[in-house]
Parts: sequence; structure tokens; C-alpha cells
Amino acid sequence: DFEEALKEVKPAFGVSADTMDSYRPQGIIPTGEKFEHIMATCKALAAQVETSERSPILSCLLEGAPGAGKTALAATLALESGFPFVKFISAETMVGYSESAKCSAIAKVFEDAYKSPVSCIVLDDIERLLEYVSIGPRFSNHVLQTLLVLAKRQPPKGHRLLVLGTTSQLPVLETMELAAAFNVTLNVPLLQPAEVTSVLTATGAFTPADAQGASAVLGDAVAIKRLLLLVEMACQGLGEAPHPAGQRPTVPLERFTDVVMDVGS
Amino acid sequence: DFEEALKEVKPAFGVSADTMDSYRPQGIIPTGEKFEHIMATCKALAAQVETSERSPILSCLLEGAPGAGKTALAATLALESGFPFVKFISAETMVGYSESAKCSAIAKVFEDAYKSPVSCIVLDDIERLLEYVSIGPRFSNHVLQTLLVLAKRQPPKGHRLLVLGTTSQLPVLETMELAAAFNVTLNVPLLQPAEVTSVLTATGAFTPADAQGASAVLGDAVAIKRLLLLVEMACQGLGEAPHPAGQRPTVPLERFTDVVMDVGS
Amino acid sequence: DFEEALKEVKPAFGVSADTMDSYRPQGIIPTGEKFEHIMATCKALAAQVETSERSPILSCLLEGAPGAGKTALAATLALESGFPFVKFISAETMVGYSESAKCSAIAKVFEDAYKSPVSCIVLDDIERLLEYVSIGPRFSNHVLQTLLVLAKRQPPKGHRLLVLGTTSQLPVLETMELAAAFNVTLNVPLLQPAEVTSVLTATGAFTPADAQGASAVLGDAVAIKRLLLLVEMACQGLGEAPHPAGQRPTVPLERFTDVVMDVGS
Amino acid sequence: DFEEALKEVKPAFGVSADTMDSYRPQGIIPTGEKFEHIMATCKALAAQVETSERSPILSCLLEGAPGAGKTALAATLALESGFPFVKFISAETMVGYSESAKCSAIAKVFEDAYKSPVSCIVLDDIERLLEYVSIGPRFSNHVLQTLLVLAKRQPPKGHRLLVLGTTSQLPVLETMELAAAFNVTLNVPLLQPAEVTSVLTATGAFTPADAQGASAVLGDAVAIKRLLLLVEMACQGLGEAPHPAGQRPTVPLERFTDVVMDVGS
Amino acid sequence: DFEEALKEVKPAFGVSADTMDSYRPQGIIPTGEKFEHIMATCKALAAQVETSERSPILSCLLEGAPGAGKTALAATLALESGFPFVKFISAETMVGYSESAKCSAIAKVFEDAYKSPVSCIVLDDIERLLEYVSIGPRFSNHVLQTLLVLAKRQPPKGHRLLVLGTTSQLPVLETMELAAAFNVTLNVPLLQPAEVTSVLTATGAFTPADAQGASAVLGDAVAIKRLLLLVEMACQGLGEAPHPAGQRPTVPLERFTDVVMDVGS
Amino acid sequence: DFEEALKEVKPAFGVSADTMDSYRPQGIIPTGEKFEHIMATCKALAAQVETSERSPILSCLLEGAPGAGKTALAATLALESGFPFVKFISAETMVGYSESAKCSAIAKVFEDAYKSPVSCIVLDDIERLLEYVSIGPRFSNHVLQTLLVLAKRQPPKGHRLLVLGTTSQLPVLETMELAAAFNVTLNVPLLQPAEVTSVLTATGAFTPADAQGASAVLGDAVAIKRLLLLVEMACQGLGEAPHPAGQRPTVPLERFTDVVMDVGS
Ligand SMILES: Nc1ncnc2c1ncn2[C@@H]1O[C@H](COP(=O)(O)OP(=O)(O)OP(=O)(O)O)[C@@H](O)[C@H]1O
Ligand SMILES: Nc1ncnc2c1ncn2[C@@H]1O[C@H](COP(=O)(O)OP(=O)(O)OP(=O)(O)O)[C@@H](O)[C@H]1O
Ligand SMILES: Nc1ncnc2c1ncn2[C@@H]1O[C@H](COP(=O)(O)OP(=O)(O)OP(=O)(O)O)[C@@H](O)[C@H]1O
Ligand SMILES: Nc1ncnc2c1ncn2[C@@H]1O[C@H](COP(=O)(O)OP(=O)(O)OP(=O)(O)O)[C@@H](O)[C@H]1O
Ligand SMILES: Nc1ncnc2c1ncn2[C@@H]1O[C@H](COP(=O)(O)OP(=O)(O)OP(=O)(O)O)[C@@H](O)[C@H]1O
Ligand SMILES: Nc1ncnc2c1ncn2[C@@H]1O[C@H](COP(=O)(O)OP(=O)(O)OP(=O)(O)O)[C@@H](O)[C@H]1O
Ligand SMILES: [Mg+2]
Ligand SMILES: [Mg+2]
Ligand SMILES: [Mg+2]
Ligand SMILES: [Mg+2]
Ligand SMILES: [Mg+2]
Ligand SMILES: [Mg+2]
Repeated sequence: DFEEALKEVKPAFGVSADTMDSYRPQGIIPTGEKFEHIMATCKALAAQVETSERSPILSCLLEGAPGAGKTALAATLALESGFPFVKFISAETMVGYSESAKCSAIAKVFEDAYKSPVSCIVLDDIERLLEYVSIGPRFSNHVLQTLLVLAKRQPPKGHRLLVLGTTSQLPVLETMELAAAFNVTLNVPLLQPAEVTSVLTATGAFTPADAQGASAVLGDAVAIKRLLLLVEMACQGLGEAPHPAGQRPTVPLERFTDVVMDVGS
Repeated sequence: DFEEALKEVKPAFGVSADTMDSYRPQGIIPTGEKFEHIMATCKALAAQVETSERSPILSCLLEGAPGAGKTALAATLALESGFPFVKFISAETMVGYSESAKCSAIAKVFEDAYKSPVSCIVLDDIERLLEYVSIGPRFSNHVLQTLLVLAKRQPPKGHRLLVLGTTSQLPVLETMELAAAFNVTLNVPLLQPAEVTSVLTATGAFTPADAQGASAVLGDAVAIKRLLLLVEMACQGLGEAPHPAGQRPTVPLERFTDVVMDVGS
Repeated sequence: DFEEALKEVKPAFGVSADTMDSYRPQGIIPTGEKFEHIMATCKALAAQVETSERSPILSCLLEGAPGAGKTALAATLALESGFPFVKFISAETMVGYSESAKCSAIAKVFEDAYKSPVSCIVLDDIERLLEYVSIGPRFSNHVLQTLLVLAKRQPPKGHRLLVLGTTSQLPVLETMELAAAFNVTLNVPLLQPAEVTSVLTATGAFTPADAQGASAVLGDAVAIKRLLLLVEMACQGLGEAPHPAGQRPTVPLERFTDVVMDVGS
Repeated sequence: DFEEALKEVKPAFGVSADTMDSYRPQGIIPTGEKFEHIMATCKALAAQVETSERSPILSCLLEGAPGAGKTALAATLALESGFPFVKFISAETMVGYSESAKCSAIAKVFEDAYKSPVSCIVLDDIERLLEYVSIGPRFSNHVLQTLLVLAKRQPPKGHRLLVLGTTSQLPVLETMELAAAFNVTLNVPLLQPAEVTSVLTATGAFTPADAQGASAVLGDAVAIKRLLLLVEMACQGLGEAPHPAGQRPTVPLERFTDVVMDVGS
Repeated sequence: DFEEALKEVKPAFGVSADTMDSYRPQGIIPTGEKFEHIMATCKALAAQVETSERSPILSCLLEGAPGAGKTALAATLALESGFPFVKFISAETMVGYSESAKCSAIAKVFEDAYKSPVSCIVLDDIERLLEYVSIGPRFSNHVLQTLLVLAKRQPPKGHRLLVLGTTSQLPVLETMELAAAFNVTLNVPLLQPAEVTSVLTATGAFTPADAQGASAVLGDAVAIKRLLLLVEMACQGLGEAPHPAGQRPTVPLERFTDVVMDVGS
Repeated sequence: DFEEALKEVKPAFGVSADTMDSYRPQGIIPTGEKFEHIMATCKALAAQVETSERSPILSCLLEGAPGAGKTALAATLALESGFPFVKFISAETMVGYSESAKCSAIAKVFEDAYKSPVSCIVLDDIERLLEYVSIGPRFSNHVLQTLLVLAKRQPPKGHRLLVLGTTSQLPVLETMELAAAFNVTLNVPLLQPAEVTSVLTATGAFTPADAQGASAVLGDAVAIKRLLLLVEMACQGLGEAPHPAGQRPTVPLERFTDVVMDVGS
């Protein structure tokens, strides 16, 4: 079940685990084969960075629709790498920074990483780091050029680096030649009906039958982030009676449908 | 009646109530079912923020035509949330600020909110915060990027936040991906003839029959802000004789029609 | 006659009257019904600001072709309002100011106005305040955003404000959403032939018959500012003999026609 | 003849005459009726500024093709106005100035002029003051806004001002609404064949017959500045024998034709 | 074999050899005739710079698709030139520099080079030095103008300079007239199937038969950088048993095919 | 022959001759009639500046394809003018300057020139001074406006100035109205086959027959700069045996053809 699923991805080691966890606020629920394949490919890259003599730097871009789970995946992979230096670069910690302050902060993380024998850096929501907006379009070329160089630059001899990026704007990053600066690009897919059903069941808030009914209310491709929010809203105010700790009340299908009507799927 | 209607929304608690009231200078007159539905949906969100373990931040965008009553609604919801920290972010208090001063001021409010266990922040007239103008178009990307991040950023553990935004430029905010940063988007509609009639009656300035006649003078979709201004203008100079405190003189239909002719509906 | 007409609009009170007068260098000659209607509508707004409890801020935009008399009208209305605080905001007093110096200066006037129980602010030639030029187009978004906010911002409780704006670029201000920030927009029309005739007669420089002939030389829509300049040019060098103080020599029709040929109507 | 012609326009009074003369390096040769008409119209404006009570500021824009003689005309008119304050504003004295230094310098001249009872300011080559270039187009909006205001601003009571502008970019100035800021716009025409002939004769470098032949070599519309340069080139190296002071050798028609072939007309 | 191939290009002399080597992290594997021809042409230029009296500066632009091996070639040529002053200019060492800091750094290298009797400067990844991005497009014109001048400027008398540039954006550099500032432009081609086969064989990770099979899995034009990465990935985790130092395990064809499927060719 | 040709243009006087020579690194080889005509026209201008009372400033723009020899011609003319003040303004000496530093430097040269009774200033490669790039296009309007003014400004009384400009972007300079600021524009043509043959012969590196053969290998219009580079390359490594000082070995036709194949014509 859901709680079980959560435990599965608890990182085995210390330090930044706490903060990292905030990047997957609703934990990780395995969603099926595609999910496993992405995890496996990324783990192979991590292993290669750690062991191969000839690839001191490898990079992987996780791209997909908003809410597909990119950030949560990247955080999970970073945590599970077990590398001694793991760092998350996110616009959330740089609110109000000037372009060049952002560049410095980013470069600083890379410089720090170069001091560790093997490191993992997550560049989360790259379009946000770039201050990208499609009107214009506008973005920080200063940050872009910094990323274009850092994503490919060799660490000093004897040091290794895995770079994980996330974005929901792949075409933009391709036009900017930034996607090409990554060795590998992987798509994080939206959920298809069967996956939705199994995630809903895993949450413990639906009977298996209702889970399927609820899935039918939604489209063909659902963002897991949105799905979990809808469940949360549907759970809202259900039964004032106390439930066993951490266990959710069961959501009637009609209530779920109402929520979807009200706030959109 | 009108004065009664006003009392209905008086906030139950202290502090910033005074200033907030200035954001709904003509009080709140319930306009019907749609109005109730918006209020209910937003209140459910407020309740969820307060109680659910899994949604420490929820956000709702109130969008609609100029004068539809978005700001008044947001102010009312913020006041009625009863949250210990309630703050209004408006361009009106930042006249002449530089882009980065605006960003700092906005970020400061969020940082302050993070210190309260549960807070409500109103981002009023987002296009004004963004310094948006359709020629160009131009806007402050610095402010935009700040809002894109803050509207989604998780508060620190154990803290919760409700963000209410208002805008009359939904398509623009959609293009900027800022609408998508809100969990829910609700339309605040213009008034239809029946609603206009009932608002006019509620003001106490029209006989029910004249209220209907006055409604017919106006279009199919009327902004409540404009409607109340027209009433005010029509009341102007009517009867020098003193009226019971707070009670308005009755407006003859022809006078209302003249005002509409003169200054447009 | 002309001198009589001038006296009609002398302000009843002190202080800034002198400077204000410089904004209507050739006085005010009543031009007919439309002129009276504009004056009446604006005066009603002034009265409403002064007396209504529910409209502490009202604003009116006077728009019309170059030279139509917008500035002179706004100055006259401001002077005649009799409000204790009356201020003219014009680009003429801000030559060479930076964008933000302009914003500060403008905001300062509003802050000052908020200290008076009831005030009138004229925003003259708004496109000039905005540093607007149609090539680009370019303009100061900083000033625009300042005006967008100030034109709608509620004064502090117990204070009232009338804002009069003038512009010959209504479509531009509409695109900028600045026109919509005003409660009322009034067109200041160009003069039609009959009005031209009566203005020419009022100047005392034409016999009634010649006034009509002179009117025929001009187009269907004449700017009063241009008309008075043409009269002035035609008067030039006419009769060296002294005239009773302030009285003009009569202009022969041919001379007027020659001037129009030379410098355009 | 040429020397005679030059004397005709010697200013009757002192001070800045010397520098002004540098703006018409080859003197003024009367070119015919159109020339006289422009001079007369401008002189009438100067007289009106000096005497009329109601037009304390008048402005005239001299526009025409490059080399048509606009600057020389403006300098001549300014000198001959006999006004106690006469000042030339030219980009030549502001090389390397920043936009705002230019604005200050320009505004300073106007402020100085306001101290004199009656003044004349020449705004030479306005497109150069504006740093205009058609690619973009680019120009200094700061300078433009300064000129838009200064060209119309009333001097303080009791002071009068004549503004003369020159430009070869009338359509640009019209788009910028700067042309409309001038009361009058006059075209300075290129020379037509008969005028060319008479100018060539006036230079004393051609026999009347050759002057006509030389005129035929050139196009239908010739810039006087170019014409005088071609004459100068053709004179080059002609006859080493000394000529009576200031008198030129006669240029053979073939030599003139050769020069035109070599360097273009 | 591979190790042998590597030795072939070891530079004969000291100093910056170490750092330079980092620009060809996987050594140089001779890829065939075209490779030899490029090397030969560039070496002739180096010789000419060293000996000819009349060409104190010569420049060569190596252009080709991403990963074609341009940087590795330039580094190799620079090292093998044997010139006493050899310097690499790369965006990698200028992360976060302002435009003008970049210009200074670049100009400094040239100034230093002018002090040596004969020097070689590599301008690596010129589009990165220019901060080029195709959106806009944007780039640093300041850096561009610096390169346009430095690439052609004569060293002081008695000093000689060879400039090698690399780019994967030839059309852009042509539009910028920067390509034309180089005396010679050479294309570094992608590998064709036969060349892929021979490179794969040279790596020692494939049997000759499998090398051909692996080549067939890839397209018609393969970047050597990508090819070597795919080999590296395919080698990953193959056989835990120790191998003779530096010797690789043999990669089964299916494994190589899987890797290509997973991460793209 | 070549060495003879070189001697022909040695300047008769001192000082800046040395540096100037660096602007024609391969000397001047007379290329025929057109070459003589350009030289003659420019020398006539120089003479006119020196002697005519009425043209204290004259300017000539040498325009032509890249490598046509514009800079070498301008340097030669400047040197041969024999004027006491001769100065070269080139982007090469202003690498990394800011726009306004460039303007100051340029203006300084003109101010210095005004102190000499007669001066010659070369504005070399004007598009480089303007930091022009066709993408955008971008350029320094600050420098452009400076040149627009300085190219026409009269020196102080009694001082004379010849301005020579070079450019390979005539259409751009025309659009900027900068070409029109020059009194004369002359085209420096590419070499036609017969001229190529005679230049090749003059170099002493070809037999007359081979010179003709070599000319046939090239196009119809050859830049002299490129031609001399190809000769230099072809000479490379020819015959280790010592040659009489300054005399070149003869280049076999096939070798020349090979070089052209390798590096393009
Ligand atoms: N298998 C899973 N993969 C990813 N996320 C999961 C999974 N199971 C549960 N989640 C939860 O779903 C949410 C995914 O949101 P996340 O922020 O990672 O999406 P995202 O694609 O980065 O969104 P955005 O486009 O807004 O950046 C997180 O709250 C995470 O805890
Ligand atoms: N039911 C109601 N809902 C909203 N506003 C109401 C209602 N009843 C009365 N009002 C009054 O109507 C006015 C609505 O104006 P408000 O400024 O909120 O509109 P808005 O949509 O924010 O306008 P804008 O587009 O200019 O920002 C306020 O004065 C408010 O007091
Ligand atoms: N009835 C009138 N209304 C307006 N102006 C009048 C009237 N009678 C006379 N005038 C004179 O006409 C002139 C009108 O010029 P004014 O500057 O007000 O026009 P404007 O529309 O503001 O022009 P602009 O478009 O240039 O700003 C003033 O000199 C004013 O004194
Ligand atoms: N009648 C005349 N009118 C104008 N200029 C004359 C006349 N007779 C002679 N000239 C001479 O012709 C030249 C005209 O050049 P001027 O600089 O005034 O032209 P311009 O139109 O201002 O050119 P530009 O477009 O370059 O600014 C001057 O040298 C002037 O002395
Ligand atoms: N013959 C060869 N030529 C070039 N590179 C080779 C050769 N043999 C092996 N290599 C290796 O191939 C890789 C080529 O990558 P390199 O960075 O030089 O390509 P690039 O064209 O500069 O790529 P980018 O477009 O990313 O700048 C290097 O790791 C180099 O060691
Ligand atoms: N008759 C000649 N005219 C011009 N240059 C010659 C002549 N004879 C030999 N040369 C040599 O040819 C070269 C011409 O190059 P130059 O730099 O002057 O051309 P350019 O047109 O200025 O090129 P660019 O467009 O790159 O500025 C010089 O090295 C010069 O010494
Ligand atoms: Mg994310
Ligand atoms: Mg609002
Ligand atoms: Mg006005
Ligand atoms: Mg001029
Ligand atoms: Mg490279
Ligand atoms: Mg050159």
C-alpha cells in the first residue's frame, strides 16, 4: 500500500535527505514498467560515473509534462545514488537573485562538487533557473551559457560527476542547444488509465472498483501530481470520526467526480 | 437590504481587517448562486490547507472581467479565513518600486507567512504586480519568475499557506505559465440581467420595478463595480432633504438612463 | 465679446490660479452646446467627489484631437472646482527627468493630495508623461504602471480626489488599459463651421460676415488652438494706428485666406 | 555677383555672428522666388513673436532634402532676427554626449532664452539631435520627449521665443509627432535648372552660356550644397596665374562635366 | 590498437600539455584519410606561420557537427605545433564572466602571444565564447567584435601567430562575418560506416565482425564523441573478472544494440 | 617587379610611416588603370583641401569587397598626402573599448587634427568601428552618430581636413546615411583575370605563362589580399635551396592549383 510504497524509497544515508524529501512531498508510488525503466537507466548512469575510467562526467535530462513527477524522480535518484556529495539546484532557493548571482550560486555548487571524488547535482526545473517565459521569449542568457558550459565541463582529474536535469520545456531546451548538452534525455510520461487505477488503489483512499471508476472520470494522460491533489481534495472533510493513524477514509466515487467537476482534471 | 448585506461579511477578528476593507469599498452584496459557489469552493480550499497533512500549500486564482468583483471577493475570503496571518500584496503599496524592490517586498511577505502556522496571502491584480502592458508586451520578468516560484514553493515543515490570486488577464497568465502554477482557477462572472436587478434592489436606491427597468438599460453582462458607480452617480444631487442616516433617496429611472447615456454603461 | 468671455472663467480663489492660467494662454471662449455639456458632466463629477460617501475617488479622461482645447478645459475645471488642493501634473515641469524621477514626482503629488480633504489633480497630456512615441512604440512602462495604480487607488479614509486626464492618443491609452482606469471618458470635439464662425466673431477680429467667410476657408473640423493662432497671424502688422486697449483691428478676409495658404489650416 | 550676394546677408549686429557664419560656409546666394517667400514667411513669424501679445512662442520647421540649404537659411534668419538672444543647438557641439547630457544642454539653452525678453533658438538637423538612424529605427526617446515639450512650452510671462528647426527627415518627425509640435512647416526646395544656371552665374566661375550648359549636366533637382562643391572641385588647379582677390578663374564646361562624371552629381 | 593510437599523438614537449589533454579526454584514434588531410593542411599552415616572411598571422576554422572531434583536433594540432606559446581560449574557464571580462581575458591571451616569437591560440567552441543562442538570436556583440578584430590583427613586427578556431555553427559565424575573418575553413566530418567500424575495432572492445554489426546499428553519419560514449556505456558492468590493465572486455553486439535503443544514437 | 613596385610608394617623410606600413603588409602592386584613377581622384581631393579657400573639409569613402585593398589604398594615400598630421582610426587599437570610450578616442583624433593647419584622418573598416553585425542588425549608434557629425563638421577657421573612410558594407552605410556624409564615394574593384595575371607576374613567383594559367584557376573577380595569400601558401616549402635575398622561388602551376583546391579561392 501507499505507506509501504513510501518506505521503499527512504534513502539509506544522511545529511541532505531531509531537504531532498521536500521535493517529493507525497512520496513515491511505483507506477509501473515505464517508471522502473527510467529508474534503471538512471541508476546505470550513476554506476558508470562511479566506475568507468573514461566517463568522468555523465548527464541525464528528465523531461515531461507539468506534474509528471520529474522532480520527485530526480530527488529520489540523487538520494539513492549514495554519492558523498549530492546537491539540488532549484530556483526556489534563489528567489530574487540577479542573473549573475544565480550564475555564481550555480557555479559554486559545481566547484564544490569537483572537490568530492564523486558527486550528483540536480538541476531542477531548468526553465525556471533560466527565468524562461514564452512571451518574447525571454530568459537569462547568462544562466543559459553557464549551464551550457557546466553541463559538459570535465571535472578535474580523478573526480566524477552525475548531472540530473528536469524540465517540462524540452523543445525550448532543444532550441537552446541545452538538451544536446546532456548525454541522455528520458521522457517521464503522464499516467495512463491503468496506471491511474493502480495509483488510486495504492493511496488506500479508494476501493479497487471505485479506483477504476475514478480513473474513467479523468483523461487519457494524467499528471501524478494533479492526481494526488484531487485525491487529497476528495478526502477533505470526509468522516469526522478518527481513523487509524496515517490511514485514509474511503472516498465515494461521486465525491471524487464532484471535485473533478469543480476544479478541473 | 444593502446595509444588512454589508454586515454579513464583517470579519470576526482583528488586525488588518481595517485595511482589507478598503479593498471592497462598497461592501459585498450577495449576487446569487454563482457567487455562493465560488465562496464555497474557496472556503473548502482554506479548510483543506488548515487540516490536510498532505497539502501544505494550496492556491486559487480568481479571474474575471474588470470590475467583476475579484478583489472584493479575495479580500473577503482572506478576512473570513480566520487565519492568524493574512496579507494583501498589491501594486498600490509599491508605487515607484523598482523591479527588484517589488520582488523583495513580495518574497518578504511569503517569508513572514512561513513563520505563522497557517497563512493566507492575496496576490491582487497580478498583471499590475507584473507591470504588464499588452504593447510589446512588456512586463517584469523578475517579478514573474518570483511569483512562478513562490506560488508553488512548499512552506517549511509544519507550516501551511493559502494563496489567492486575482487577475483580469487570464490568457496572459496562461501564456506565462503562471495560471498553471495555481492549483485551481475560478471565473468571477459579470452580472446577468436578473442579478443586476437584484443588486439594484439590494442597494435600496430603486423600487423593484425600476430596478428591472434600469437593468434593461444595461448590457447582458455588467461589472458590479461599474453598476454600483452608476447608482452612485444617479443618486448624486437627488433631493436636498435629509434622509434617515445611511438610507438613500430613490432614483427615478429616467435619471439612471441619463447617467448611463452620459458616461457609458 | 472675447474679453467678456475671458472674465467668465476667472477662478474665484487664490494660489495656483496664476500658473494654471498659463495652460489656457488664449482664455476660454464658449464654443457652444457640446462645450457646455462637457463642462456640466465634469462639474457633476466634482460635486459627487465632494459629497458622496461612497465615491472617494472619481476620474475623468478628456480626449480629443491635438489643439481641441483639452488642456485649457482641464485647467478651467480644476480652477473652478474650488477644491483646496489643485495640482497640474505636466511633462513641461519634468523636462529631462529620468523615468523614476517622473514616477516619484507624480506619486508625490498624489501623496500631497491625500492630505487635503478634497483635491483635484490634472494629468495633462498623458502621452507626454508616458514619453510615448508611436515608433516602436516606446514609452515609459514605469510611468504607465504608476498611473495605472494611482488613477484607481483609494485615498485614505475621509479624503477625496478628482483626477482629470487629457490625451490626444485615446486608442493608445485604451490598449494600455489606462483609459479603462478612468471612470469616465469624454471627447473634446474639434469645431464645426458654425462654431468656428462664432468663435471668430467672439475674438472681435472679424465682422460677422467675414467670420463666416473665414470659416468657409477652413475644413469641417478645426482645432480651436490652431484657429486662434491663424487669427493672431492674420492680425499681425495690421494698422499701425493705436487701438483701444485690448481691442483688435479688423482682419480683411483676403488676409486671413493668405495666412491659411501660407502656413496651412 | 557672388561677393555682393554674400554681403547682402551680413548681420547688422554682434556676438555670435562669427560662429553662426560657420553654418553657411559658402554664404547665401539668392536663388529666386521660393527662397524669398521662405525668408518672408519666417520674418513675419519673427515679427509676430516680437510684437503680438498672444503668441509668446512661435515655431517653424524648415525641411528639405540633404544639402538643400536648410541650415544656412536657419542661421541667416536667426542672425537677421536682431533678437538679443540667438542660439544654435547642433549635434556638432555635443559629440559623445550621453542622452541625458544632450537633454540638459538643450534644456539649458531654453532656460537661458527665457531670461531674454525675446530670443531665437535654432534646432539644427533635428534627426542628428535625436541620434536617429533608420535601422531599427533607433533614436533617443529622451531627447525626443525633451524637444516635444520644449518646442511647445510657453516661456514665462513677458518673454518671447522663436524656434527654428531644420530636418531632412520630415516623415520621421511627423511619425514622432514632432513636426506637429511646430506651428509652421516650410519646405526648402532643391534647385531647378533655371535656378542652377543663375547660381552658377552668380559664383562668377562660369560664363552665362557655360552656366546653362553645366546646369544641363545635372539632374532636375540639385542641392545647392552639392552644386557649390562641384564648382569648387572644378575650379581646383585651374590656372596658376594670380587672379584679382576673391575672383575665380572661369571653369571650362568640359572640366565641370568631368568632375560630375568622377564624383557623381 | 587504441592504446597505441593514443601514444601516437603524445606531444613532444612540456608545460600546458597536461591541461590540453583534458580537451581530448578519450585520446585520438586516427579515423582515416579525411582525418589525415585535415591534419596535414593545418600543419602546413603552422609551418608557413613559422617560416614565411609575409604571413605573420594565419588562421584556420575547424567546423563540424557536435561531437565530430573539432576540439580534440585543435588541441592536438596546438600541442604538436611545438610553438613556444600555445594557449586554449575556452568558455569553460570563463563561467560567469561578464561580457567585458571575457573580452579582456581574450585580448590578454593575444597580447601575451604577441610577446612570443611564434604562438598558437585555440578559440574553442566560438559560439560559446560568443554566448550565442538561436532564440533571438542573442550573443555578445562585444565578444564578437573583439574576435573579428583579433582574428585578423597583425602581430607586432617579428612576431607570428597561428589561430585555430572551432565551431559547430558555421552558418551563424558566416552571417556574423567571423568565418570570413579566418584565412581557411575546414570541415571536420562525421564518421561514415566504414570509419565507425574501424574506430570500434581500434577501441579493442569489439571483435572485427561485431564492430561491423555495431556500425550497422548506427546511422550514416556518427559523431566520434557519441560513438565512444556508447562504447563506454556498453562496456559498463561487463564481466567483474579483472582484465589486463587498460584492456577492455569484449562487448556483445546485443548489449551495444540495447544501449543504443535506450539512450539514442 | 614587386620590390620595385614597393619602393614606388615609400612615403617621403617621417613619424607614423612605420605603423601605417603595417596596414599594407604586402606592399602595393599597381594593378592597372582603375587603380590609377582612384589614386588620382583622391590626390585631387587632397590637393583641394590643401589649397581651396572654400572647402576646409573634404571626405572620400573607399568601398569594395573584402580584401579588395581598401585599407592599403587609404594608408598609401594618407602617407603620400604629405600632410603634417596623418592619423589612422582603426578598431584594432580599440579592442575591448566601451562604446563611449570609442567615441572619445575618435573625437580626440579629430580635435587633434583641428590643431594642425591641414590633416588627414583615415576611418578604417567603418563597420568594425560601428561594431556592426548583420544579425539584428546591431551596431553602436553612439559611434555612428559621432561619425555622422565628425565626417561633416567644419574644422575651426584656417584649418583643413581630409577624411578617408573604408568599408566593405556600402549598403549598410547608405542606410545609416553615413555614406551620404562623405563628399565622394569610390569603388575599389576586385581584380579581373588580366589584372590577376599581371599581379602574379609582378610577384616574381610565376613565369608569365604560369601566371596566366594560375589566373584561369581563379574566378572572374579576385581579392588582391586573397591572391597574395594563395601565392604565399603556394611558395611554402618550395625549394630548400637558398635564393637571392628577397627573391622568390618559382611556383609550379600544379602546386598553385592544389592550394586553391585545399583552401578555396
Ligand atoms: N512514482 C512517482 N513518481 C513521481 N512522483 C511521484 C510518484 N509517486 C508519487 N509521486 C508524488 O507526485 C508528485 C510529483 O510531483 P513533482 O513535483 O515531482 O512533478 P514535476 O513533474 O516535477 O512537476 P512540475 O512540472 O510542476 O515541476 C510529488 O508530490 C511526488 O511525491
Ligand atoms: N458580491 C460582490 N462581489 C464583489 N464585489 C462586490 C459585491 N458586492 C458589492 N461589491 C463591490 O463591488 C466592487 C467590486 O470591485 P472590485 O475592485 O472587487 O472588482 P475587481 O474585479 O477587482 O476590479 P478590477 O478588475 O478593477 O480589479 C467593490 O467596491 C465591492 O465592494
Ligand atoms: N472653449 C475653449 N476651450 C478650450 N480652449 C479654448 C477655448 N476657448 C479658447 N481656448 C484657447 O484655445 C487653446 C486650446 O489649447 P489647448 O492647449 O488647451 O489644446 P489641447 O487640446 O490641450 O492641445 P494639445 O493637443 O496640443 O495638448 C488655448 O489657448 C485656450 O486658451
Ligand atoms: N540661398 C542659399 N540658401 C542656402 N544655402 C546657400 C544659399 N546660397 C549659398 N548657400 C550655401 O549652400 C550651402 C547649404 O548647405 P546647408 O548646410 O545649409 O544645407 P542643409 O540643407 O542644411 O544640408 P544638410 O542636409 O546636410 O544639413 C551652405 O554652404 C551655404 O553657405
Ligand atoms: N580522431 C579523432 N578526432 C577527434 N576526436 C577523437 C578522435 N579519436 C578520438 N577522439 C575523441 O573523441 C572526442 C571528440 O570530442 P570533441 O569534444 O573533440 O568533439 P567536438 O566536435 O569538439 O564536440 P562539441 O561539438 O561538443 O564541441 C574526444 O573525447 C576525443 O578524445
Ligand atoms: N594595388 C594594391 N592595392 C591594394 N592592396 C595591395 C595592392 N597591392 C598589394 N596590396 C596588398 O594587398 C593587401 C590588401 O589588403 P587590405 O587589407 O588593404 O584589403 P581590404 O580591402 O582593406 O580588406 P578588408 O575587407 O579585410 O578590410 C595588402 O596586404 C596590401 O599590401
Ligand atoms: Mg518539478
Ligand atoms: Mg481588482
Ligand atoms: Mg494639451
Ligand atoms: Mg543642415
Ligand atoms: Mg568542442
Ligand atoms: Mg581593410
